[in-house]
Amino acid sequence: MGQGGLSYRDAGVDLDAAERTKDRLKDLVASTRDRWTLSELGAFGGLYQLPDTFLAPVLVSSADGVGTKLKVAFLAGRHDTVGQCLVNHCVDDILVQGARPLFFLDYIASGTMDEGVTADLVRGMATACKENGCALLGGETAQMPDFYRAGEYDVAGFIVGAVDRDRVLDGSSVREGDVLVGLASNGLHTNGYTLARRIVFDLMGLRVDDAFPGTDHTVADELLSVHRSYLPVLAGLLHDDRIQALAHITGGGIPGNLPRVLPEGLGARIDRASWRVPAVFETLQSAGGVDPDEMARVFNMGVGMIAVVRPGRAGGVISASGGHGVEAWSIGKVVAGTGVEYVG
Amino acid sequence: MGQGGLSYRDAGVDLDAAERTKDRLKDLVASTRDRWTLSELGAFGGLYQLPDTFLAPVLVSSADGVGTKLKVAFLAGRHDTVGQCLVNHCVDDILVQGARPLFFLDYIASGTMDEGVTADLVRGMATACKENGCALLGGETAQMPDFYRAGEYDVAGFIVGAVDRDRVLDGSSVREGDVLVGLASNGLHTNGYTLARRIVFDLMGLRVDDAFPGTDHTVADELLSVHRSYLPVLAGLLHDDRIQALAHITGGGIPGNLPRVLPEGLGARIDRASWRVPAVFETLQSAGGVDPDEMARVFNMGVGMIAVVRPGRAGGVISASGGHGVEAWSIGKVVAGTGVEYVG
Repeated sequence: MGQGGLSYRDAGVDLDAAERTKDRLKDLVASTRDRWTLSELGAFGGLYQLPDTFLAPVLVSSADGVGTKLKVAFLAGRHDTVGQCLVNHCVDDILVQGARPLFFLDYIASGTMDEGVTADLVRGMATACKENGCALLGGETAQMPDFYRAGEYDVAGFIVGAVDRDRVLDGSSVREGDVLVGLASNGLHTNGYTLARRIVFDLMGLRVDDAFPGTDHTVADELLSVHRSYLPVLAGLLHDDRIQALAHITGGGIPGNLPRVLPEGLGARIDRASWRVPAVFETLQSAGGVDPDEMARVFNMGVGMIAVVRPGRAGGVISASGGHGVEAWSIGKVVAGTGVEYVG
Repeated sequence: MGQGGLSYRDAGVDLDAAERTKDRLKDLVASTRDRWTLSELGAFGGLYQLPDTFLAPVLVSSADGVGTKLKVAFLAGRHDTVGQCLVNHCVDDILVQGARPLFFLDYIASGTMDEGVTADLVRGMATACKENGCALLGGETAQMPDFYRAGEYDVAGFIVGAVDRDRVLDGSSVREGDVLVGLASNGLHTNGYTLARRIVFDLMGLRVDDAFPGTDHTVADELLSVHRSYLPVLAGLLHDDRIQALAHITGGGIPGNLPRVLPEGLGARIDRASWRVPAVFETLQSAGGVDPDEMARVFNMGVGMIAVVRPGRAGGVISASGGHGVEAWSIGKVVAGTGVEYVG
């Protein structure tokens, strides 16, 4: 408190730090610009010209967070991968409706702004934006003392993509007998961390640098593995109309997400033995004594995306996925009924 | 913990509560749908067809929060107005580039989901979305135990609007001698709350139900007054090309925001005596012993938006604003130089 009077900084908000951080991020953000990006960082709103490649453009938008995976990032002092997770999660959420990403914005809130942490986070977002051909168009960095603990933050991402109206993927063409192709996840992605942390850190008593049982990773590497973007695998297949529906396997697992894209009167029969459940899930289940149905509802269990395809197309989709380094399996089929039934 | 095994709920995440909340919000969200809204709540991404009224559409997007104004909402147990603030803030942020809003998404994060609080928040957002002719297209409600205190949450908003490319407002037509028309704010809007709360609750020792000195409002009413949307005032004026530039007065105050829309080599001279500073700011300044320059940098001081107009247009803009119930004043002019100089 200078001269007996109160300032914003005394109250815990440092506008200069906010400005310095903005300067630091300028190049990172600029590296994601494409020919449709019209604005610079610092404008009130980000400007993005709609590409003229769409005939009847439908905008597809989604908001997401990373959940308590952030707590693992705090423990490990590693902030770029959760930035990547956030972007990829958003990309996958709009991909299931056939959209390709145009731009992304972030919201980062912390108690006191750590310029290095913010830069790491945004670096991760910029990396993922570039990988997905998506502009990092803007964002808000909020300093909220007495909301967040020292060294902690929350982060949200917003994405806008586009698809031509007659190419919106809504699952309406799915029919009985279609095959469910499961695409491998890269670990837990961004779901189930509150339960996973409880098991790993409280019940198993592990620390981030310890080896994760059943894997050749540390706990940090295993739990911070980057949420996979399925855009590289699926963009070409979508373009060629080889897919009837897509389900992104997030909170709620397969039973909570797959039925959302199946028409009324159709359900799914899934063969549990058809894919290899990664060791991380086996370890969590046995160490936590978690019921198998609960596991299936909380975690992706190794399948991060499900493509619903005509029976004759499954082989091609599986090999196309493998060509992008993503293992895939025929995990079941569409049947008359409702919901998800597990067999095997 | 049932049967010795751990569940997601045991760990603090209640997927059923999340589903129930989603059901409760369905009608609220549906009430904001317009003819371009293609998706229902519950789709992975929200779908919005770009209106065919744009020739060369530029999308304008912004992300924002409400800052620690939320703490006042927690104290008062009133959550709808901060929802309105969030939407209106976003609307104003893209309005300054000439865009009208198309759709809005939210991110709400809390420790344990309070269905009533979430519904109130979303009700406020839906109200403001309807007032601004903007669809509430989707959102994410995150349960993050051990991030947020009981009864607390954070919220972020994300807006997408559009403007035709040749109508993007970028300040490039601003010239020396243009007049600055200040449009009245409705209190603090969403900035400076960390300092304001420190003064009101710590230094002045007030509680939310007490009278706010110098006003006929309670502390809660004064500090929770809704961030004003300037869309009703400015939509027609923008359509008629009566405005050269707009600056939304948020964090950084007039000195931090007005120069962002002035061309290189031009600054602003502002007459402090030209408008009536609302009592709330006078009270904060005197009770906190805050330096006047600091006040001007942290708060809007009664001016929530500045329109830069040709000298002959100022009177018309002021009376148009009055016609929408928003007081406006000629508060200064554009001069050769840089930054903001205060006189008077």
